[in-house]
Amino acid sequence: MVERRLAAGAQIVAPIESTYWWAGEIQRSSEWLLLMTTASERFEDLARCVRELHSYEVPQIIASALVAGTTDYLEWIRRETAPRSGE
Amino acid sequence: MVERRLAAGAQIVAPIESTYWWAGEIQRSSEWLLLMTTASERFEDLARCVRELHSYEVPQIIASALVAGTTDYLEWIRRETAPRSGE
Amino acid sequence: MVERRLAAGAQIVAPIESTYWWAGEIQRSSEWLLLMTTASERFEDLARCVRELHSYEVPQIIASALVAGTTDYLEWIRRETAPRSGE
Repeated sequence: MVERRLAAGAQIVAPIESTYWWAGEIQRSSEWLLLMTTASERFEDLARCVRELHSYEVPQIIASALVAGTTDYLEWIRRETAPRSGE
Repeated sequence: MVERRLAAGAQIVAPIESTYWWAGEIQRSSEWLLLMTTASERFEDLARCVRELHSYEVPQIIASALVAGTTDYLEWIRRETAPRSGE
Repeated sequence: MVERRLAAGAQIVAPIESTYWWAGEIQRSSEWLLLMTTASERFEDLARCVRELHSYEVPQIIASALVAGTTDYLEWIRRETAPRSGE
């Protein structure tokens, strides 16, 4: 996803222990938390890509907004996720 | 909290190293970060439940908003946290 | 940063595995995720302090907003990050 510039960066926090409802029962599993930083206009493409690669029927694909950030870092996100010509 | 459908899912990231002000001094402790996914209307009940179970006098109970997410996942949150009849 | 009351608390999640674009190439490194809780008016000072201490040219310094929290915890954030006289 970073290679395809759908995210400027990705951070893996692992393992995490997850507990959740699925098929009427509480499930418990060890998972990876993948935090990705991208431009809002890239979210739909990024979500589609995660869904293609993920093994779950309904993976947790959510976004929260940045309300502040250093100018150079925010610029870096825009620059690194800008679609390349021919994409 | 997941069992009581106050959250659709919970993820434990542990251990984390925390540094914070308490009683006029800087405290350092090893803690668990508990990330829970729920519907906004469930937050007050969820916060009350965390407070009852937590050992701290002022536990960190905060929420940030989801600004986007896949339709099926957001639907899953609503479905799994909807109060059951008789609740 | 906690000592200087630029943040009321800080939590280290480590190690995390990061993948990101830098200097035209994909970089991979093991990093620490530092989550800090502060009042919005302290963000600029906190960001400046992180930049001074960080080894990267463009460190990830971003903020997301709290949309809810228990009253006593939110009060704690304000109290512990209030500038002290003579600061």
